[in-house]
Amino acid sequence: MKAEAMSDAAPSSQPRLFTFVGADLGPWAVRTARTLMGDALPPAPCLQVVEGTAVPPSHGAGWALAGITSNERYVERHEKVALVGAQAGLGRAQATRAALIPIRKSAAWWALPQDERRAVFESQSHHIAIGMRYLPAVARRLHHCRDLGPAEPFDFLTWFDYAPEHELAFDELLKALRNSPEWAYVDREVDIRLVREPT
Amino acid sequence: MKAEAMSDAAPSSQPRLFTFVGADLGPWAVRTARTLMGDALPPAPCLQVVEGTAVPPSHGAGWALAGITSNERYVERHEKVALVGAQAGLGRAQATRAALIPIRKSAAWWALPQDERRAVFESQSHHIAIGMRYLPAVARRLHHCRDLGPAEPFDFLTWFDYAPEHELAFDELLKALRNSPEWAYVDREVDIRLVREPT
Repeated sequence: MKAEAMSDAAPSSQPRLFTFVGADLGPWAVRTARTLMGDALPPAPCLQVVEGTAVPPSHGAGWALAGITSNERYVERHEKVALVGAQAGLGRAQATRAALIPIRKSAAWWALPQDERRAVFESQSHHIAIGMRYLPAVARRLHHCRDLGPAEPFDFLTWFDYAPEHELAFDELLKALRNSPEWAYVDREVDIRLVREPT
Repeated sequence: MKAEAMSDAAPSSQPRLFTFVGADLGPWAVRTARTLMGDALPPAPCLQVVEGTAVPPSHGAGWALAGITSNERYVERHEKVALVGAQAGLGRAQATRAALIPIRKSAAWWALPQDERRAVFESQSHHIAIGMRYLPAVARRLHHCRDLGPAEPFDFLTWFDYAPEHELAFDELLKALRNSPEWAYVDREVDIRLVREPT
């Protein structure tokens, strides 16, 4: 078990901290930015994904949200094997659509012990099982914000990319999650859809 | 379940980020600083516990380690109820001894899925059960560092305080944990013991 775990450890050189910058310029054009719960973000026409830290532009439209990739909080071994076998990496040539979905969860969520959070997340809400249905069409990377500091505006930033023909499937995925018991604990959510030129 | 969870949510005004500063001056005097695994910390005669961020002193002895309190990663409801019923808060008048124990875990640990980390932590190592035996004599607060940024020197800082007559019990607690399977995943550990004047 230990040797197996070693083999899928991320190399230490792999970047973990990313900043999403809403700005006047950037490779991704914002198509829509919809606030589903809580406060909106200031409008910005474009988005850049930066490795490491970045500050919002000092003039014009702008915001910057940072998040860090981390260990899995709920995924069990059998689920990890299934996910790793099915998922695709970000940045495929055909993945000219993307979404950034910042969410925050309530104090009630964070006060739950691990077994009850897992039960809401998977036994009741099927978060992992729902996501699996859309692999490999939708690629994703989850960034944690809550433990970056004591006053982060969101708890998670999830970045997705996919080909234009999978946008409806992506909407279906989000609808299923938003209708799940887990989403009763979401108290802020923004859904930003993006497009880039084919490379 | 939701109402119950609400009731034990920490008030949002409670500080989460703390910095431990090794310096020439401070309310805690360093009695010993022992490196059990990995690199040592620079020597410092005293320690201050600061709410929020702090930088090490610009001259003389000094280091600063920051960590943030967070949600439980392994504790289940029955364990949480038992812990909350037994534990004491930090800062009791008789708690004139303290320990700061920074640790880092290996890439192999962080690559394990949640169920396997929980199995090592509790089913195999009895981390929660061992700690329970020393409540309320030993009070503790766990700070997470790993998701503060991509290059933190430790993953966790645990701060303990207790009365002088419980130092031997505290040593027993650490011995049991260090002999457990979980500790095979610890790749850096420093054990700093402190004393303050009675107030």
